[in-house]
Amino acid sequence: MESLKQKIRTEGQTIGSEIIKVDGFLNHQIDVKFMEEIGREFRKRFQGEEVTKILTVESSGIAIACEASKSFDYIPVVFAKKAAPSTMVEGCYSVEARSFTKGTVSSLRVSKKFLSEGDRVLILDDFLASGEASIALVKMARKAGAQVVGVGAVIEKEFQGGGAKLREMDCRVESLAVIVKIEDGIIAFK
Amino acid sequence: MESLKQKIRTEGQTIGSEIIKVDGFLNHQIDVKFMEEIGREFRKRFQGEEVTKILTVESSGIAIACEASKSFDYIPVVFAKKAAPSTMVEGCYSVEARSFTKGTVSSLRVSKKFLSEGDRVLILDDFLASGEASIALVKMARKAGAQVVGVGAVIEKEFQGGGAKLREMDCRVESLAVIVKIEDGIIAFK
Repeated sequence: MESLKQKIRTEGQTIGSEIIKVDGFLNHQIDVKFMEEIGREFRKRFQGEEVTKILTVESSGIAIACEASKSFDYIPVVFAKKAAPSTMVEGCYSVEARSFTKGTVSSLRVSKKFLSEGDRVLILDDFLASGEASIALVKMARKAGAQVVGVGAVIEKEFQGGGAKLREMDCRVESLAVIVKIEDGIIAFK
Repeated sequence: MESLKQKIRTEGQTIGSEIIKVDGFLNHQIDVKFMEEIGREFRKRFQGEEVTKILTVESSGIAIACEASKSFDYIPVVFAKKAAPSTMVEGCYSVEARSFTKGTVSSLRVSKKFLSEGDRVLILDDFLASGEASIALVKMARKAGAQVVGVGAVIEKEFQGGGAKLREMDCRVESLAVIVKIEDGIIAFK
């Protein structure tokens, strides 16, 4: 997606050789018009696929998932929670996800009401790096007996291996911008 | 907003006399088409007001804020973070917010890049209960020298006092559904 690469080049900020900061339009301040474009692009990438639910994880995936939902006839968005709210009284699916950047392990949870055996799930998120969050969501959907149609990421950092791991799990992966290397502040796209 | 009250009545689930669970369309699973309606309603409520930025807090406010943004000519959405990400290296505004339901105190943070003196800020969230999160966002915007145009909540639990506290802080409050009482599973709206 050329407009996305352009936006990453002009507005992104690299930190060392592993981090690219895009908090000006994607995950702190949100450029909603651009999110609409991203939503439509995901529909194009998964054209012809039947999808009944979009699954993401709080917080940065929510805006993306909601925009994509519109291009998929407004199918429901479900976001996994990192902490169990006091109101989550009924059963939930819970899968552990390690965060490499924070060095922590957290449980992602989705209420059993919102993932079912018949569901065809598209998993969307802002970043695909080491893949821990996406892998946890794939496991969760499969635990519920749902079919994972694919995993979509706005930005994939290919050198961190998450995409490869997901493909090993028989997941189709579509990333709108794939970064192969960050060096001396220069971002190399695939 | 009659359609919202109707949706709360039919899909909401009361827990005791203080909690109403609306995780089927608002804060776990998201009904995106309905969020669009909510976004347009906020525009109506704040008609004629100049707004340059929508401020919310992760996670449940994000979908609402993004939908409202469209009705306000796609002004940027900024969501406050509950934990400082490793990539938040520059200065940020930080304000403490107590959570009555969880019994915890957390710091809400917004990067200084995304709130400025000239901003006219509309604060939006899913719930207005004791008001702690909204009050923290008002303080944050004012710390940045920005003008708070108003606070909008999808559901206000009036009996928990947050709305009154915000009005004491000279904030205009617009709630799309105001609950005055929950008793024996019956929700009384204003």
